[in-house]
Amino acid sequence: MLTEFKPRKFTDLALKPRIDLNCDIGEGFGAYTIGNDDALLKLATSVNIACGFHGGDAAVMRRTVGLAVEHGVAIGAHPGLPDLAGFGRRTMQVSPQEVYDMALYQIGALEGFVRAADGAMTHVKPHGALYNMLAVAPELAEAFAQAVRDFDTSLILVGMAASALTAAGERINLRTAHEAFADRTYQPDGSLTPRTHPNALMKSTGEAVAQAVGIALYQKAVAVDDSELTIKAHTICLHGDSPDSAKFARAVVRGLRAAGIELRSLIR
Amino acid sequence: MLTEFKPRKFTDLALKPRIDLNCDIGEGFGAYTIGNDDALLKLATSVNIACGFHGGDAAVMRRTVGLAVEHGVAIGAHPGLPDLAGFGRRTMQVSPQEVYDMALYQIGALEGFVRAADGAMTHVKPHGALYNMLAVAPELAEAFAQAVRDFDTSLILVGMAASALTAAGERINLRTAHEAFADRTYQPDGSLTPRTHPNALMKSTGEAVAQAVGIALYQKAVAVDDSELTIKAHTICLHGDSPDSAKFARAVVRGLRAAGIELRSLIR
Amino acid sequence: MLTEFKPRKFTDLALKPRIDLNCDIGEGFGAYTIGNDDALLKLATSVNIACGFHGGDAAVMRRTVGLAVEHGVAIGAHPGLPDLAGFGRRTMQVSPQEVYDMALYQIGALEGFVRAADGAMTHVKPHGALYNMLAVAPELAEAFAQAVRDFDTSLILVGMAASALTAAGERINLRTAHEAFADRTYQPDGSLTPRTHPNALMKSTGEAVAQAVGIALYQKAVAVDDSELTIKAHTICLHGDSPDSAKFARAVVRGLRAAGIELRSLIR
Amino acid sequence: MLTEFKPRKFTDLALKPRIDLNCDIGEGFGAYTIGNDDALLKLATSVNIACGFHGGDAAVMRRTVGLAVEHGVAIGAHPGLPDLAGFGRRTMQVSPQEVYDMALYQIGALEGFVRAADGAMTHVKPHGALYNMLAVAPELAEAFAQAVRDFDTSLILVGMAASALTAAGERINLRTAHEAFADRTYQPDGSLTPRTHPNALMKSTGEAVAQAVGIALYQKAVAVDDSELTIKAHTICLHGDSPDSAKFARAVVRGLRAAGIELRSLIR
Repeated sequence: MLTEFKPRKFTDLALKPRIDLNCDIGEGFGAYTIGNDDALLKLATSVNIACGFHGGDAAVMRRTVGLAVEHGVAIGAHPGLPDLAGFGRRTMQVSPQEVYDMALYQIGALEGFVRAADGAMTHVKPHGALYNMLAVAPELAEAFAQAVRDFDTSLILVGMAASALTAAGERINLRTAHEAFADRTYQPDGSLTPRTHPNALMKSTGEAVAQAVGIALYQKAVAVDDSELTIKAHTICLHGDSPDSAKFARAVVRGLRAAGIELRSLIR
Repeated sequence: MLTEFKPRKFTDLALKPRIDLNCDIGEGFGAYTIGNDDALLKLATSVNIACGFHGGDAAVMRRTVGLAVEHGVAIGAHPGLPDLAGFGRRTMQVSPQEVYDMALYQIGALEGFVRAADGAMTHVKPHGALYNMLAVAPELAEAFAQAVRDFDTSLILVGMAASALTAAGERINLRTAHEAFADRTYQPDGSLTPRTHPNALMKSTGEAVAQAVGIALYQKAVAVDDSELTIKAHTICLHGDSPDSAKFARAVVRGLRAAGIELRSLIR
Repeated sequence: MLTEFKPRKFTDLALKPRIDLNCDIGEGFGAYTIGNDDALLKLATSVNIACGFHGGDAAVMRRTVGLAVEHGVAIGAHPGLPDLAGFGRRTMQVSPQEVYDMALYQIGALEGFVRAADGAMTHVKPHGALYNMLAVAPELAEAFAQAVRDFDTSLILVGMAASALTAAGERINLRTAHEAFADRTYQPDGSLTPRTHPNALMKSTGEAVAQAVGIALYQKAVAVDDSELTIKAHTICLHGDSPDSAKFARAVVRGLRAAGIELRSLIR
Repeated sequence: MLTEFKPRKFTDLALKPRIDLNCDIGEGFGAYTIGNDDALLKLATSVNIACGFHGGDAAVMRRTVGLAVEHGVAIGAHPGLPDLAGFGRRTMQVSPQEVYDMALYQIGALEGFVRAADGAMTHVKPHGALYNMLAVAPELAEAFAQAVRDFDTSLILVGMAASALTAAGERINLRTAHEAFADRTYQPDGSLTPRTHPNALMKSTGEAVAQAVGIALYQKAVAVDDSELTIKAHTICLHGDSPDSAKFARAVVRGLRAAGIELRSLIR
C-alpha cells in the first residue's frame, strides 16, 4: 500500500520486517554486454535501469524494461554522468543545473520504454560517481531531487541512507528510500569505507548476509572498528557487475528469507 | 478544435484557409550554437526541438522548451539519427527496431523537459536523413509511427506530405500532419528536387512565398517542369539554419497573412 | 623480405605456399570487453586493432598494442565508421572526404600507441560496414587508400580480394594485400554470400579449413553453386567475435600447417 | 635556432625581447563552428588545434591543419578531456594512466593530418580543465609529459608558467614552454585569479597589452594586490572564444611590436 511507505519516519519498520532488494541492470551498450541481468532479475524486487549516459542504449533499455515488466519487479531509472568510457564512475565537476538537466533527460528517456511496455516507473536511483556526489553535495542533491519531482511527484527517490540526497528528497516531500549495502563495510560515522581501502568489501558472503539481515531486522550494523551503527534502510543493493554477483545475491535472498524478512518492492 | 483536424481527409481544408508554420530549433550542443531560434520562435506556430542525437543536449533542450512555452508555440519532438558529427544528415542503414528505439528514447527525453516546464508535447517530426528515409521506407515509417503512438496516442505525427510516413501514421490512426516546403522546388511526381540539383532551392524569396501561399490556399504548386501539382499540407516548414532564414521566414509569414491565411498550430 | 611482397602479381605465390592469418582485436570499450583477444593473439600472424570509432578506446588501444608487440604479431590499424552503438556495422552515407578524414584520424590515433610501445604499424584494414562499402565504391576506396598513403607510403592496405579497395591501393602503388575468408561461402562471381542468406557461413569447421587450405595453396575455392573460383589472397581472416572463434581459429591454423603452408605476416 | 630555446634557463630571454603568441583553434564540430580562427591565424605565431575530445572532429582538424600550414604558424596538438558537451571545461577525476592514454590518442590523431599536409607538429598544450588539472597535480602532469615524450622526444610541452606541468616536462628533459596570459589577472602567488572572481579578467585591453609587454620584456607582472610578480614565459595565450577576441589579439600584437618585441614561434 502506497501510504504505508513512510521514508521520513521509521517508527514502524521494526514491526514489519521487510526490505526491498535492488540491483542495477541494463548497462550493456550496442554489441557490448555486461552484468548478470538474467540472474538478478529473478532475485531483486526492484531494478535500476541504465539510461544511456554511463551505459545502456535505446535497444538495451527497451529489452531490459520488457524483462523487468515480465518479472514483475519495480522499475527505476538509473541516471549517470555522461561518461560511457568511464562507465559513469569518474567524478565530474558539474553544476546543480547540469545535474538537474541530465537527470530529467535520462528519466524521460526511460519513461518512453516503460510506457510502451505498459509498465510503471516507481523510483529513481543515481549511478556510480553521481550517486556518491549526490550523497555529500547538498546543492547537487537538491537539483537531482527536484528533477525527479518535476518529472513525477509520485516517484520514489533512492539514495545512500542518511545522505545529502535523501535529505534533499525529504525536504521537498518526495517519497525517499534510504539504501544500505550488504557487501560493503561501514565506517563508525555511517559512511561506506572507500573502495580504495583494503577492507572496503565484506570478507565473506556470510558476513554480507549477516549485515543485510541486521539492517533489515534491527536497523543495526557493525562498523569496521566494531562499534554499533544505526542504519535505517528501505532497500539493500545487490551489486551486479562482479563475476560472483549472482551467487552473492542468492545468498542474501536466502539469508533474509530465513530470518523471516519479507522481500518486497518499495511501492507495495 | 481537435476534432476538426482530419489528416486523412482534406475536403474541408480549402474552405478554411489556414496553415501551421513549423521550424526546427534547439539544435545547439554544449558550447556550440546554431540557427536563429530567437527569430523563428516569434514567427513559427510550431517548433520541433532536437533531442540530443543529431543536435541538442539536456541543457539546450531545457532552455528551448522554456522558450517555446513562453512564446506559446506548439512543441514537438524532433528525433534524429545518432550522428552528432553529421548533424543527423547522413543516411544510416538502421532496422525498423532501431528506428522504433531511437524515436521512443528521444521523445521520452524531451517529455521530461516539457513536463517540468508545464508544457505539452503536441507533435513529433523526424529530422534530416531520418525524415527522408521515413518518407520512402514503409517499414521504417511504421516503426517510427508506432513509437509515437506507443508513447502517446494523442500525439500528431508530422511527415513529408503524401509520404510513407504519413501513410504509416494514418494506417494506425495517429493524427498525421502533412508537411510542405516553401523554399524547395518540387519534381513532377511531387517529390522534392534533391539538394544536389542546382535548382533544388527556390530562386527568390518571392517565389518561395508564392509557393507557400499556393499550397496553403489551393493545395497547388508548380513543379520544376511547370506542371501543376496537388500538395495537401497542414504545415509548412521554415528552414532555420541558413543565414537568411529569419528574413525568409518573415517574408513567408507576411505573404501568408496578406493572402488571408490564418497561421495556427496543428492542435487548435 | 619486403620486396618479395608483390600484391599486384601473384605468379610466384603458388611456388611459396604461405599465408598471413589476420584477426580483429582490441574492440572493447571502457568497462566493456568483447572478443577472444588472448586466444587469437596466439594464433594470428597479423592483428587489426580498433581505433576508437566502432570500438576500442585509448586505454584498450594501449593495452592491445602492448599485447601485440609482446606476441610479435604484425600490427594494423582497423578504422571503422563513427558508430559505437552499431559497432561500425551499419552502412552510413559518407563522402570520400569523410572517409579520408576518419581513416587518417584513426590511423594517427593508433600510431601514438604503436610508437610508445616501440612497435611498428604494418598495415591498415577497414572494419565492418566500412570494409564492405570500400569493397564496392571506387571513390570511397580511393579516399581510404589515399589516407593510408598520406600517412605512411610503406603501409600495407588490406581489403577484400579483388575489390574496389585493393584496386584503389594498387592504382596508387600502395602495397596492397588481398583478403579471403575461411568461414564464409562465396558466390560464383567471387563475392561473399551476404550474411542474410542461410548459407552465408560454411557448414562445418572442416569445410572452412578446406577452403582456407585451397585458397592458400591453389588460389581456388568452390562457390555455392559448386563452380570453381580463383581467389588470390595474401591473408585469411580469422573472425573473432563468435563464441567458437578460438576453436575455429585453432582448426584453421592446424589445417594450414598440416598442408605445409607457412603462416607468416605480410611484411616478412 | 632550436638550441637557443632553453626552457629551463631564462637568463638570456631579457637580452632578446621576443615572445610566442599562441591561440586555440579548430574547436568546431560537425555542423558547429566556434571561435575566430581566421582572424587569429593571422595574428598568432603558434596554434593549438583541438583533437576531437573536447572539440574538433576529423574534418575540422584536416581543414585547420591546412590553414595553419598555409599561414606558416607553428602547429600544436591541444588534447582535452573526453567531454564534448562540456567543451572539456569540467574537471574529471581521471587517473595518470587515463591522462597518458587520452594524450597519446589525441596527439597521434592530429599527427595524421599534420603529416598529410606536409606540416610538422611542434608542440602540445592541454586544453581547459585538463590544463588546470595538470598545472597542480604532479602525477597527472608527469603522465601527460611522458605521453608527449613517448610520441616524439622533440616536441615542446606548453603549460602554465611555473606549474606542475612545466616541472614535469623539465624533469624528463622535454623542451618545455612556460605560458602566461595577457587578459587574466594574477594572484600574489603567481596563480591566475579564478574565473569565478569578479576581477579574474583584465578590465581593459590597454591593461592586458601592458601586462603582455611587461611579461615579454621584463618577466614581470603586477598582481591583483599591486605586488610585483616574476613571470617567466615563452609564450602568451590569445584567447579565442570571446566575441572581442580578434580585436583584443590585434591590440596585443600591436602593443608587443611597438615595444620592440619580436613575435616568433617557439621553434625558431
